[in-house]
Amino acid sequence: MKLRIYLFLAVVVSLFGEQAYAQKASWIWYPGDFDIYMSNVMQNRRTERGAFFPVFWKMDSHYVLVDFHKEFDLAEAEEVKLYVEGTYNVKIDGQAISGFPKTINIPAGKHKLSLKVYNQARVPAIFVQGKTVVSDDTWRSTFEDKEWIDASGKTSDKSGTTFVSAGSWNFTDPLVVPSSFKLPVTPLSAVKTEKVKNGSLLDFGKETFGFIKVHGLKGKGKMNIYYGESREEALSTDKCETLDELDLDLSVKKDSVMPLSKAFRYVNAQYGGSVTADSISMLYEYAPVTERGSFTSSDQELNKIYDVAKYTFHLNTREFFIDGIKRDRWVWSGDAYQSYLMNYYSFFDAETVKRTLWAQRGKDPVTAHINTIMDYSFYWFLGIYDYYKFTGDKKFVQDIYPRMQSLMTYINGRKNKDGLLEWMPGDWIFIDWADQLSKEGEVSFEQLLYARSLETMALCARLADDQTGAAQYGKQAGELKKKLFDLYWNEQKQALAHSRIDGKATDNVTRYANMFGIFFDYFNADQKSGVKKNVLLNDRIAKITTPYMRFYELEALCAMGEQSYVLREMKNYWGGMLKLGATSFWEEYNPDKKGVEHLAMYGRPFGKSLCHAWGASPIYLLGKYYLGVQPGTPGYETYTVEPNLGGLTWMEGKVPTQQGDIELYCSRKEIKIKSAVGIGTLRLKSKSKPVVSGATVNLLSKGIYEITIQKGKEYLVKYSAVANHN
Amino acid sequence: MKLRIYLFLAVVVSLFGEQAYAQKASWIWYPGDFDIYMSNVMQNRRTERGAFFPVFWKMDSHYVLVDFHKEFDLAEAEEVKLYVEGTYNVKIDGQAISGFPKTINIPAGKHKLSLKVYNQARVPAIFVQGKTVVSDDTWRSTFEDKEWIDASGKTSDKSGTTFVSAGSWNFTDPLVVPSSFKLPVTPLSAVKTEKVKNGSLLDFGKETFGFIKVHGLKGKGKMNIYYGESREEALSTDKCETLDELDLDLSVKKDSVMPLSKAFRYVNAQYGGSVTADSISMLYEYAPVTERGSFTSSDQELNKIYDVAKYTFHLNTREFFIDGIKRDRWVWSGDAYQSYLMNYYSFFDAETVKRTLWAQRGKDPVTAHINTIMDYSFYWFLGIYDYYKFTGDKKFVQDIYPRMQSLMTYINGRKNKDGLLEWMPGDWIFIDWADQLSKEGEVSFEQLLYARSLETMALCARLADDQTGAAQYGKQAGELKKKLFDLYWNEQKQALAHSRIDGKATDNVTRYANMFGIFFDYFNADQKSGVKKNVLLNDRIAKITTPYMRFYELEALCAMGEQSYVLREMKNYWGGMLKLGATSFWEEYNPDKKGVEHLAMYGRPFGKSLCHAWGASPIYLLGKYYLGVQPGTPGYETYTVEPNLGGLTWMEGKVPTQQGDIELYCSRKEIKIKSAVGIGTLRLKSKSKPVVSGATVNLLSKGIYEITIQKGKEYLVKYSAVANHN
Repeated sequence: MKLRIYLFLAVVVSLFGEQAYAQKASWIWYPGDFDIYMSNVMQNRRTERGAFFPVFWKMDSHYVLVDFHKEFDLAEAEEVKLYVEGTYNVKIDGQAISGFPKTINIPAGKHKLSLKVYNQARVPAIFVQGKTVVSDDTWRSTFEDKEWIDASGKTSDKSGTTFVSAGSWNFTDPLVVPSSFKLPVTPLSAVKTEKVKNGSLLDFGKETFGFIKVHGLKGKGKMNIYYGESREEALSTDKCETLDELDLDLSVKKDSVMPLSKAFRYVNAQYGGSVTADSISMLYEYAPVTERGSFTSSDQELNKIYDVAKYTFHLNTREFFIDGIKRDRWVWSGDAYQSYLMNYYSFFDAETVKRTLWAQRGKDPVTAHINTIMDYSFYWFLGIYDYYKFTGDKKFVQDIYPRMQSLMTYINGRKNKDGLLEWMPGDWIFIDWADQLSKEGEVSFEQLLYARSLETMALCARLADDQTGAAQYGKQAGELKKKLFDLYWNEQKQALAHSRIDGKATDNVTRYANMFGIFFDYFNADQKSGVKKNVLLNDRIAKITTPYMRFYELEALCAMGEQSYVLREMKNYWGGMLKLGATSFWEEYNPDKKGVEHLAMYGRPFGKSLCHAWGASPIYLLGKYYLGVQPGTPGYETYTVEPNLGGLTWMEGKVPTQQGDIELYCSRKEIKIKSAVGIGTLRLKSKSKPVVSGATVNLLSKGIYEITIQKGKEYLVKYSAVANHN
Repeated sequence: MKLRIYLFLAVVVSLFGEQAYAQKASWIWYPGDFDIYMSNVMQNRRTERGAFFPVFWKMDSHYVLVDFHKEFDLAEAEEVKLYVEGTYNVKIDGQAISGFPKTINIPAGKHKLSLKVYNQARVPAIFVQGKTVVSDDTWRSTFEDKEWIDASGKTSDKSGTTFVSAGSWNFTDPLVVPSSFKLPVTPLSAVKTEKVKNGSLLDFGKETFGFIKVHGLKGKGKMNIYYGESREEALSTDKCETLDELDLDLSVKKDSVMPLSKAFRYVNAQYGGSVTADSISMLYEYAPVTERGSFTSSDQELNKIYDVAKYTFHLNTREFFIDGIKRDRWVWSGDAYQSYLMNYYSFFDAETVKRTLWAQRGKDPVTAHINTIMDYSFYWFLGIYDYYKFTGDKKFVQDIYPRMQSLMTYINGRKNKDGLLEWMPGDWIFIDWADQLSKEGEVSFEQLLYARSLETMALCARLADDQTGAAQYGKQAGELKKKLFDLYWNEQKQALAHSRIDGKATDNVTRYANMFGIFFDYFNADQKSGVKKNVLLNDRIAKITTPYMRFYELEALCAMGEQSYVLREMKNYWGGMLKLGATSFWEEYNPDKKGVEHLAMYGRPFGKSLCHAWGASPIYLLGKYYLGVQPGTPGYETYTVEPNLGGLTWMEGKVPTQQGDIELYCSRKEIKIKSAVGIGTLRLKSKSKPVVSGATVNLLSKGIYEITIQKGKEYLVKYSAVANHN
């Protein structure tokens, strides 16, 4: 029946002209290859004071020679158009067609169409468009077709080639090749301009990103452009982090757009010789994602925090999820892991998650941890499982599973005699930017992430139908988890020790492993409350000063119902940046610092990034722990909603999913909820039994009720909120 | 003292202008990367009847982001010019210089100069030229510099980066970037032209290779060019293997050179529409190698065989050692292995050997055997050890050793429960082109090559200072060798069985393992003579019909002193091709075939290559087993000369080495020898004690004498040859 509908559509659509096809074609490539290629393009755009500044880890490449094929069964002969990025051949049933045909005819019946493409410089890609013969991710691809023949010309029937589903995205225009992909731009003007020395200082009003455009440029001499995320940085011509220097000799006025996009709020343009310009504007460059998630509440400061967080996150959502727009503009796994989570509560852009995961992992062999950082390898595994949890996209897990295996094989190969991980040449143990943070010996935090990654491997092995792997990884995870508690749990301190040196746990307790242990649900109830009291809420344990680790610290507290406390912390910490004039959130914020001290990092006066993705975590916290929405089974087939006002009078917002939004309004007396997806469980604490029409209210335990939320229905629940214990 | 001479030279040379430097700079890259890049360029030039025809195995790429550095200690400040293929940065002592400087100044004293280069499309390469600061293979390079910093900006002192010596060749012109490398061409004309249909058939007199050039092309319509290694092929417009089709609309006369070089002797040019041309010529494309080896003798037919073999080999010596110039024009490991050996007795071009070995191996991970063929993986190992034996170049072995390890790890991972190799998905078991050749079960030939490769690993491990590896591989080799005889040696048949099926050796005896066992010296004296009688000289054992395996068959016989027999075989087999008008030697020659049957292969009437490198083995046999020269210790530090006339009245020739030639004249009464290298041992059979002035003659055993040959001296030895026992 379905097939008939399609055929019917094909007829209808063909009435509208030759170019209208029933089946939608898209550019396809070897899975992961566009992502790796594009990440090379992007990560090689960084400059520091005019010098090219690429990554320090191995950059991989696309496969340069790729074979694509699909079998079709045609009711009638079909004319098929071919668009290829690269040198190629075309075969029908294994017979090559001479030259580089742009149109071929496939006869009726069962036929195999193959294209083999070579491209050293760019990703080999094809776009095939016939009436029913179209390129899409149902095509099979390989980088070694192993199709040898014997002396008689007979093709081997024992080749053993491994084919995988082709990769694709939203490239449906045959005339725009994948490698030409660019983010869109839109013109923007400065909000204020003032004279400074031999030029002017422009203020674009807030942190922004794009290409500076100089209008009506003329004369002979130099023009220097100094970029600043702060006014101080733009004015510091010898210390600002990014700049452009133009050597000009123009007798006629000309507009000029800088070749590389930059992050800035302020731009200091200085003219030398006889150079003049009419004006300066910018082309704002952005990822065309949709702002699907939302949050507003009775607290205006919190709303501002949410909005600035979302703007910060949008700026750092580009071809990939990057760390910061001024620098490094690279794809860091630990940073991206947080971006994925924020993304699920804002844009829900699955493609950027997948692209970033492919790009980070690159190709085999594994010669170092992801970004060379041990913890960052682990976040990569965690990111894949979260992706599956939020999207239910099993195919992606299957596609990337072989690369998960090879990374885990690399890591397993680096265990010491006690089966633990410690520093080896080539490893960067990062954890966090924090003074005096010891990385000696076997750090508990790394073992904890290792255990979680092994659990993830076991889960993904099952999805990829690798039962042996699932059993092995599961066993290894269990053993390591047990070891973690045997070796690091300090009964007296009621906390995991920071590390083990010379085979002995140290007395040092830090927040890292302990707070992750909470939301990994690794502790029993006693251990949990011990950790909460002795670590999380203990001021004598070294404070965290990066929004990066604040993310997890606050998540751990939320996971234990401390929303009121976390709300105050958010207002203090993120509100603190806003009070200092932040228009986007920073890489690091230490309330104890003063004035320009806030701008410095890495020994450079303007080294700090003032627009860092990891600064945007309120998006995630508010969506997951206040609106309280999270998937129960993968892809929101089932989900839970546990609203927690955390001291707010009311809040409302949307949580996006692959299939549509979950919308929620919550006050102390009323909850309105509507969902486009799955089956939800609204769980709430109420002094009285909630009242709702069209659903049953179940008592879960004393004062806690559950209501099942069906797709597409709107519910109004009357209840009486319990005062939060904080 | 040496240093002073250089400094003195520096002063002298600088008198001759700014461009003259004491130190020679060359383009450098990550080792192996130019080779892999260039092999992609070359192997993607094949076409078959106008369709692009690339390889079916995985093509690898250069590293796209490479860091180069070297430390210099300068007596005085120096201006240094930089030429870079790619986007780059330059650092002096870790401090980046803004922009893309073409000239930098390095102050006096100790400084580290680094360049980091990104190039997706072509090999990242640099050329650095100062007075003393120059780029060469003493620079260090890496594809992951792992140079992270902490929050204070301090660079990690624990990065653990692996640096290797840069790769280089003979690219000493800063204005010619490595990726633009092309073989030279020279114009040639046809020797005969005849009218054929609407055009003409050109005969270039012999097999050749290059670009067809059409002079004074004009008119509207098509021009078709059909290439033929034979007249029949060029005339067969619908079956010839290669062709060019031009679609023209030229109102003014224009010369046109075909974009791709082709192999041919005959060219059939056909004009359509109003198209005309004044004439057709070719640009002969060739590798600029020197013909250092030589051989002439009292036998004119043999001399012709040698000359045609050398021409055949020269045509197939290109950017790499390829299989055949018509097809596949690819870098096949089994074919190249023979080319290496021929090369040591002709061009002695070490660079082409190294380039071919790098190209074949590509990058990790290993996902298939080399060229997907099990035996071809083994030849690759053997080729490395031979390279070391002939050149003494230990550095190359050390450079490539990690890739030897990963290939052997791949192979070891494919052993079956009995520790033997048999077919697994993805494997091509080739052995030879031969009908009814069984590849079922565990083929003895593959196990034999496996054992030899393990021995090679043990030897190379020692050179690479991997003592553990040396011990392990040595042990594994010994065990496998023992197993080979335990499982395959048939006492009754006095031969190794062809294979083992279902755990039982078959009755089938073939030549392959048995003849390799001879020159691998795996047999004891009894086994040797058993094999000789029961296999090699036994007509009931299936005959070999490719020059490829004739190579080894004749080598085995020569190794047992059967030079007279082999001489007759050479005259029959290669002489047989000459009698059929061959101007180069073929991929396969079966004397039983007739007429155009000789041209067919792979089910195609002109599928056979008439110019195949493996057809040129007389070069090797005559040099090694008649002139009788071969290295004793690596790089000809010591060597042996055992002339064997094999029935000839006299012969003379040169055998090249890295340091110079070994020249030899030999008749039945007189031997003249002169060597530019090492210490030689002339070993000869003589009825009487040889007489020589300036050297001592030692009696080795009855009738066998040895004379030590010193470098640079000419020796005239009078002796009395023993009649050959054949």
